[in-house]
Amino acid sequence: MPTYAEMGRDELTALKDELEREYGEIKAKGLSLNMARGKPGADQLDLSMPMLTAVTTAEDCRAEDGTDCRNYGVLDGLPEAKRFMAAMVEEEPENIIIGGNSSLTLMYDAVARCLDFGTLGSKPWCQYENIKWLCPVPGYDRHFGITEAFGIEMIPVPMTADGPDMDEVERLVANDASIKGIWCVPKYSNPGGVTYSDEVVERLASMTCAADDFRIFWDNAYCVHHLYDDAAEQDQLKDIGAACRAAGNPNRYFKFASTSKVTHPGAGISAIAASADNIAEIKKRMGVGTIGYDKLNQLRHVKFLRDAEGLAAHMAKHAAILRPKFELVVSKLDEGLAEVGGCSWSHPRGGYFVSFDAPEGTAKRIVGLAKEAGVTMTGAGATWPYKNDPQNSNIRIAPTLPPLDELDAAMDVFVCCVKLACVEQLLA
Amino acid sequence: MPTYAEMGRDELTALKDELEREYGEIKAKGLSLNMARGKPGADQLDLSMPMLTAVTTAEDCRAEDGTDCRNYGVLDGLPEAKRFMAAMVEEEPENIIIGGNSSLTLMYDAVARCLDFGTLGSKPWCQYENIKWLCPVPGYDRHFGITEAFGIEMIPVPMTADGPDMDEVERLVANDASIKGIWCVPKYSNPGGVTYSDEVVERLASMTCAADDFRIFWDNAYCVHHLYDDAAEQDQLKDIGAACRAAGNPNRYFKFASTSKVTHPGAGISAIAASADNIAEIKKRMGVGTIGYDKLNQLRHVKFLRDAEGLAAHMAKHAAILRPKFELVVSKLDEGLAEVGGCSWSHPRGGYFVSFDAPEGTAKRIVGLAKEAGVTMTGAGATWPYKNDPQNSNIRIAPTLPPLDELDAAMDVFVCCVKLACVEQLLA
Repeated sequence: MPTYAEMGRDELTALKDELEREYGEIKAKGLSLNMARGKPGADQLDLSMPMLTAVTTAEDCRAEDGTDCRNYGVLDGLPEAKRFMAAMVEEEPENIIIGGNSSLTLMYDAVARCLDFGTLGSKPWCQYENIKWLCPVPGYDRHFGITEAFGIEMIPVPMTADGPDMDEVERLVANDASIKGIWCVPKYSNPGGVTYSDEVVERLASMTCAADDFRIFWDNAYCVHHLYDDAAEQDQLKDIGAACRAAGNPNRYFKFASTSKVTHPGAGISAIAASADNIAEIKKRMGVGTIGYDKLNQLRHVKFLRDAEGLAAHMAKHAAILRPKFELVVSKLDEGLAEVGGCSWSHPRGGYFVSFDAPEGTAKRIVGLAKEAGVTMTGAGATWPYKNDPQNSNIRIAPTLPPLDELDAAMDVFVCCVKLACVEQLLA
Repeated sequence: MPTYAEMGRDELTALKDELEREYGEIKAKGLSLNMARGKPGADQLDLSMPMLTAVTTAEDCRAEDGTDCRNYGVLDGLPEAKRFMAAMVEEEPENIIIGGNSSLTLMYDAVARCLDFGTLGSKPWCQYENIKWLCPVPGYDRHFGITEAFGIEMIPVPMTADGPDMDEVERLVANDASIKGIWCVPKYSNPGGVTYSDEVVERLASMTCAADDFRIFWDNAYCVHHLYDDAAEQDQLKDIGAACRAAGNPNRYFKFASTSKVTHPGAGISAIAASADNIAEIKKRMGVGTIGYDKLNQLRHVKFLRDAEGLAAHMAKHAAILRPKFELVVSKLDEGLAEVGGCSWSHPRGGYFVSFDAPEGTAKRIVGLAKEAGVTMTGAGATWPYKNDPQNSNIRIAPTLPPLDELDAAMDVFVCCVKLACVEQLLA
């Protein structure tokens, strides 16, 4: 079967008529489906209901060290919560601070602290005329939102199958002291599903940075979010902390993780992990703005999930729900779009997204067509800094929220929209 | 009976011997008592235990508008949570944002936002060479900690029985555009127990400020924290929002409140309230750093406390526990120190503190003596910016945490320490 690009004009015109009829029929259904955000589905949320009854008596409210968690105190988190989150962030518990329900807030606050105060004695970043940030693309729109809000100039760096293009990263950071950081989702990346290779992790840890206070913002949002139970089908990520220490740059990284997609996104706990020096500074500054985060919720999490083993068993339940959704998305794309040509998509083994690359110049049209047909996608361009995808090509597919039957319907709409947009472009 | 200042040297020397003997006996007891921080006692925390079972089923997790509160979303808080907190902050629900477990964080973030971005179009405060802040004294050490951390120059303003010395406040803000804000605990103030008079509220709202973007940080931490149930014995505070609107300065104030001393300090909810323009700007900037605060905890609060009536009934239970403690403190001071002379103390009708003014130059010695005898007080000087009480006179007494018998013992120690320090000073 020829791809669209190999078809003649008449053939394409006939195809367009057929696709428009198909699209019209879809529109007439008045669908209202959503594949825009990485939200767990209701059945996933149900998995954590026992957590809500894990702390109900005054005795339950005691931490292992006797702290009454109902009262004020404990800036950096309960010992058992730090120990538990160590399973996610791979750091010694003493180098972990437990936050509130949002690791995004921990990241925002970390950037803000560096801007206002510098870090470990460096000049406050706000005192520079201009500072810059590396943004592997496609990437996470809320990361880019933070750096944009603070007026930090964002430099896109291409993602490869192994992580960011390290030749490019090394070249940039070696020569420009105004580059202060990089956003990384190192495992099952958002949206590409890429896990950084050991070599990429080592090069990030050891590269020469013109800025002494360069920081890797290591958002390990999907650290335990495998789609497959068999270890051979799970991605492994080298620990950035160990790599930075080995390279003699122990303070270069801030790690972030949360239970947002483990328990309840609206009511999870989060963590920041870093070197002892970094953690000491963060605690000092953080203590100005809070007496401590919600300890009862920390207790709920530890009592419910217990430890690394309990966490893994719980995540396997999520995987059982998510696996069919991801497999459906990929098979719909494989089956529906092979003939189109010029499209590509990820085949992730974990995380929350499928990344789709349409022929250059068609992404906005595809998302617009889908919207008009009742299927909300993440906005085209959202995976790039300033929402500006210069190729107008990348679309993030978020298959987790809709039930399987809705996802099926939504993917049929999406496939039809891709085809139509591609034909339109070839005929234009 | 003569006051100490009226005694002769021999009489004082004999008194000193007697007090030192008494102090030695106290020390020998090896006490470990704490009147340092405004923490609720365990019996107060027990009052809110039903809250921890208020949200346990998937059905419980639905907000009144159908939102599944387990999932992401709702930046500014649930409608029912805003309506509930309106009872505390006296603002229309649409002009309220619900925060996490700390109103201190909302204040820190509000200062940080003004520094980084300005407010309603004004120049970012960090771009000034120097900015200043008015700090009614004695005041709350954590407020002063925020402005100090950001390098904002703090100007102490004396508190009167009606609130801050408004002649001084008006004089300062009228002539100095670098004064950008004022910390206020307007009801049952920390630590003085003062409630601002209507006139003070009106003058704050209507005064001429050289800085267009001057902001009143209105930390109404004790808005519903009466010690007495009879309305005639409860302080009434004029609404700063209404006063600012009436004066044509609708954007001048940020109100803060929380349930920290209503339910569980470690796991409460907080709120910021302000004009529609301020709230719109805060939401825009806040949304960069979070997708929304813990909605399940918002639901727990609303289901448990329900409304203004439920809140008042609940606070009456707190008052029943706290009233005897405050009455004990005041009666110990009244009985123990009348003869000393030169000391004064507040007789609060609400809030969390008794403010004690020792003879000039003795506060640090008193707190040191108490510490040595096993009674931890708030550090002398803590109620002033930079921990610098130029009179070395003010001591904050926090009577809420210790059980009544411990408080009784701690106050005996305190009274003995005050007497001894006063005699020492007269003999020095």
